[in-house]
Amino acid sequence: MEKSITMIGLGKMGLPMAENLLAAGYALTVFNRTVEKAAGLVSRGAVLAESPSVAVATGGIVVSMVADDRALLSLADDTFCLALGAGIHLSMSTVSAETNRTLSERHARFGGQVVAAPVFGRPEAAATRKLWIATSGPGTAKAQIKSVLDALGQGVFDFGEDVGAANVVKLAGNFLLAAAIEAMAEASAMAEKNGVPRAAMLQMMTSTIFNCPIYVNYGRGIIQSDFTEAKFSIPLILKDMHLVQHTAAASRAPMPIVNILCDRYLTALAKGREAYDSTALALGAAEDAGLNWLK
Amino acid sequence: MEKSITMIGLGKMGLPMAENLLAAGYALTVFNRTVEKAAGLVSRGAVLAESPSVAVATGGIVVSMVADDRALLSLADDTFCLALGAGIHLSMSTVSAETNRTLSERHARFGGQVVAAPVFGRPEAAATRKLWIATSGPGTAKAQIKSVLDALGQGVFDFGEDVGAANVVKLAGNFLLAAAIEAMAEASAMAEKNGVPRAAMLQMMTSTIFNCPIYVNYGRGIIQSDFTEAKFSIPLILKDMHLVQHTAAASRAPMPIVNILCDRYLTALAKGREAYDSTALALGAAEDAGLNWLK
Repeated sequence: MEKSITMIGLGKMGLPMAENLLAAGYALTVFNRTVEKAAGLVSRGAVLAESPSVAVATGGIVVSMVADDRALLSLADDTFCLALGAGIHLSMSTVSAETNRTLSERHARFGGQVVAAPVFGRPEAAATRKLWIATSGPGTAKAQIKSVLDALGQGVFDFGEDVGAANVVKLAGNFLLAAAIEAMAEASAMAEKNGVPRAAMLQMMTSTIFNCPIYVNYGRGIIQSDFTEAKFSIPLILKDMHLVQHTAAASRAPMPIVNILCDRYLTALAKGREAYDSTALALGAAEDAGLNWLK
Repeated sequence: MEKSITMIGLGKMGLPMAENLLAAGYALTVFNRTVEKAAGLVSRGAVLAESPSVAVATGGIVVSMVADDRALLSLADDTFCLALGAGIHLSMSTVSAETNRTLSERHARFGGQVVAAPVFGRPEAAATRKLWIATSGPGTAKAQIKSVLDALGQGVFDFGEDVGAANVVKLAGNFLLAAAIEAMAEASAMAEKNGVPRAAMLQMMTSTIFNCPIYVNYGRGIIQSDFTEAKFSIPLILKDMHLVQHTAAASRAPMPIVNILCDRYLTALAKGREAYDSTALALGAAEDAGLNWLK
């Protein structure tokens, strides 16, 4: 029997993920607000649906990868949940734990289940199936979507039955990522103001005690002033930092660094850098120190 | 001809380094304020000197690894610099760039040269020759001490002729280290207040996008609540953070995270945790969120 699946959201992450589902042999139906994004997939056999509720199969599996909480909740209206029925919604967007819990309640009314599966990795990692995936949700549903995740990433870490848990981990990870950029930027600004080029300092650090993907990749971005081409744009990461701030506040967990990060990204937007990459956070510490790292 | 060398300072780092110099075949003379620390070395052939100026050989090489800037400047008085004469002082302590520049001026009056060579790694890395070493200073002197550093670490990164440069890098690195602990602590507190154990979250992060020594080792410390046994004690790392703060301020480089770090360590001292490890920084974010991570 052919495996069928639906993918909603063909953005920078969703599109390469959909391509991997096709490559893995799934009969793929897609929906995206901007229809043009689906052209390549359609030319390779995917079906483009006119609406999310038409795109899903009753009792089937739908994967969503949309921009934010509002987009996800707006997608999952009664029509959509009814159409999916007793199927599984694999919710892979970076949203709050609360949003996935709400999503779960909505689908439950029609017999459906939600598995949260946010991912770590930029678009190139999505394209090469190098994503790391955090999951949470009902065990029976997780068993049924295992092969889908195998087609998308290099490893899955499970965080139990609470559908919100994986999103807490995703937010924690994105916070660690942005905090690492800020720390590298502050250290680099201090180094340069004291005669040491940031390239020399960061190259030692990222090839020794900080030789992991986040420091290596974002460190390279800081060294090469690779700020303006967005792989993970500032409005998207600021949305995540605001989710962290909100989640932390609601649960009474003060996080002083996240406040610095939100302010840095707000400053970037105030300077008209909507289209810049999340790495451009680093310009904040540099410019505050009177340095210009823009090419 | 037998290679001779002098080592000043047999603390948690200096002692294993001295042992590696002995193991590498150096005729070793040592000095330490606490004489007992030298017993093991003396039993294996090292000579214990009564004072630093007696310990050094005129025109020879002396390695110093002492607690702070004051200890280093107090060591390198006129008597000491005269005794070393046209030798080389390999200054491996974590001190300010300014202190090594002052040290360099003092030795220069007697024909001596200073090479800065601060190290990255905890005592176990020192014992297993796994230190990463940053160097700076006169090229001719660096060429002469190359084999000494080869006996102590796994790799050397050079930062040019300014003797202060390597210390700027060392301060930047220790700042990155403490910032990583604080970020992991804030993320962990937020996760636990939202139902995700810090062990689960940190194990995913440190085995995927943050799989480098600093996150793996200090993350394990946070997971296991390994706070009280000091390998790198709070007064020592607070000294480093104050050096970062001072260096940043003097060069007009605002570093908001370092202010958080200094306050965390001051709070740890205010709570009587002088003997705790630098990892205990993490207790700040936890306790501020109403969590108790002490075993």
